[in-house]
Amino acid sequence: MQLALSLAARGPLRDPNPRVGCVLLAPPSPGGGPRRILGRGFHRGAGTPHAEAAALDDARSAGAEVRGATAVVTLEPCSHTGRTPSCADALLGAGVAEVVYSVADPNPVAAGGAARLRTRGVHALGGLRVAEGEALLRVWLTGVIERRPFVTLKLASTLDGRIAAADGSSRWITSEAARLHAHQRRSEACAILVGTGTQRSDDPTLSVRGPAAGHAPQPLRVVMGLRDVAADAAVRADPELFVHLRTHDPVTALEELRLLGVRHVIVEGGPTISAAFLRAGLVDEIDAYVAPILLGDGASSVSSLDIGRLRDASRWATESVRPLGVDTLIHLVRDTRANAEYDRAVAAEGVAA
Amino acid sequence: MQLALSLAARGPLRDPNPRVGCVLLAPPSPGGGPRRILGRGFHRGAGTPHAEAAALDDARSAGAEVRGATAVVTLEPCSHTGRTPSCADALLGAGVAEVVYSVADPNPVAAGGAARLRTRGVHALGGLRVAEGEALLRVWLTGVIERRPFVTLKLASTLDGRIAAADGSSRWITSEAARLHAHQRRSEACAILVGTGTQRSDDPTLSVRGPAAGHAPQPLRVVMGLRDVAADAAVRADPELFVHLRTHDPVTALEELRLLGVRHVIVEGGPTISAAFLRAGLVDEIDAYVAPILLGDGASSVSSLDIGRLRDASRWATESVRPLGVDTLIHLVRDTRANAEYDRAVAAEGVAA
Repeated sequence: MQLALSLAARGPLRDPNPRVGCVLLAPPSPGGGPRRILGRGFHRGAGTPHAEAAALDDARSAGAEVRGATAVVTLEPCSHTGRTPSCADALLGAGVAEVVYSVADPNPVAAGGAARLRTRGVHALGGLRVAEGEALLRVWLTGVIERRPFVTLKLASTLDGRIAAADGSSRWITSEAARLHAHQRRSEACAILVGTGTQRSDDPTLSVRGPAAGHAPQPLRVVMGLRDVAADAAVRADPELFVHLRTHDPVTALEELRLLGVRHVIVEGGPTISAAFLRAGLVDEIDAYVAPILLGDGASSVSSLDIGRLRDASRWATESVRPLGVDTLIHLVRDTRANAEYDRAVAAEGVAA
Repeated sequence: MQLALSLAARGPLRDPNPRVGCVLLAPPSPGGGPRRILGRGFHRGAGTPHAEAAALDDARSAGAEVRGATAVVTLEPCSHTGRTPSCADALLGAGVAEVVYSVADPNPVAAGGAARLRTRGVHALGGLRVAEGEALLRVWLTGVIERRPFVTLKLASTLDGRIAAADGSSRWITSEAARLHAHQRRSEACAILVGTGTQRSDDPTLSVRGPAAGHAPQPLRVVMGLRDVAADAAVRADPELFVHLRTHDPVTALEELRLLGVRHVIVEGGPTISAAFLRAGLVDEIDAYVAPILLGDGASSVSSLDIGRLRDASRWATESVRPLGVDTLIHLVRDTRANAEYDRAVAAEGVAA
């Protein structure tokens, strides 16, 4: 499954289809020992073979016999015939004896592959390394389950949570290393969104620049809010990429973006827009760049969240922490259990002040 | 020097004397190869032998001949005869041929050891791994050079820089793992200081509790500010340890603490006190605990620093970053070059927004 997961990770980040990897293992040899790898494959994006088909092709082109083999897949094989045949049928046709997968397919159109395999006598077992499997499929799963784009909130602030000094100056709070990383993240998304306030104060281009540019098409440049965007705004540099969403409602904004084919949007502020997405529960992950700076005054990274008490705080799960130049990047994901855990900890009471 | 540094680190953190380590190496053998270690020692605190004497004793008790040896020391050997004989003289008396040290001794009473060794024909070379040597001696060097206690500023805030929710609730922003670490830090300091505002709102004990307690005597519990501290305040639990500094001036406060024998004080807020020490340039290092929480409202970790423009920000050097439970600890030290580097970076202009 480790190998299947790393194959899956090679798939395209901005594709409408899920990133899936597949490894075909020879039947156990009578003498025991590790099982031979017959073929490997991953999905390279819409219109190309699914991971299972790619792995079967790989095995066949090497002249390997796949009858009786085990398929290890990161996502439950689909039972849906689209531009490519159903993966469940492809595995059945090849005579695979066993299928082991990580994440169950929640897509109503394609789900049921495991059940279909089982009715045809193939052993199918899911749920292996499911946290890692889901991490690879986050964007896709959000689209399938919630029918909206996956939302990354980017926060770049000082140690005391400021995004600008008292006079409004904000270039640059974070270091070049952090900004290069942010451009890399932009290059993986379908759209970059800011509010009209940030558009007016910073006149950002919202483009991918530096080494991250060139790997993929530029993301859409989205401004959200009721105020007009000036005709000479930097964000309008490429009219084909510019989108103005005349709404304050994140639900409406995400629905419009979904209809434009956006599967992953990065919300880059300002504080009002960031707070709006947080209040609506529509942030899936946070990239928090923290600069080793104190300002004492100036705008904070997030406007009011209508939170009165600490126990109602917006709590997140820290997925990784790493230095980035002189700054620190804290990557956070949803943590639905955090507030309950906070309550338990307060009840149990640990070390006091 | 690596070994000498790790020996030095075994010395006591709260002693008036510097933490020093010493290794004695045999003269080079004619056949080459690594030099044999004859003895090792470190300073265990005021009234006990200095590191050089401890290493000489170690070598002698092993029956080793130290004539012609090389002494590797983390601090320039002293030329001052106090409760123990001068280290320069001890090394000369033992017939050591060469002395290699890291940090030059800035103490006017004890400096000049290297010069004294050289006039007596001993080769003396300083400056090896001086950053690591100075890191071990930070507290002591601040006392000798600046004649004031070393100041650690503790900040514990949310991702958006808040230290309390809108209603003032603040227990706990950070996790138990972070609080345990803070108690460990308290156990290494001579005094813990808060302002009268924090004393009144939180009624903290400022004691060392949990696993960190018991290793050393409790630090002083210091409240700074003009307002009275209630007779039943938790900080008064042990009257011998309670100090009230009736001043708003960090310079005055540190001078009073120095006279009380304090060599290292941890300033634990609130925002007004933290800002006062920062504005006065009297913070030597910052322990910033960042919790994976957003609040949107509530008090910020640092009050106004009278900073108008980003280019005048209080900039720090990130020394280490690490996860601590669900929180992140960013350890920062003074960085006098950071603002100049910021100006250079802006002039050169890197990747834009």
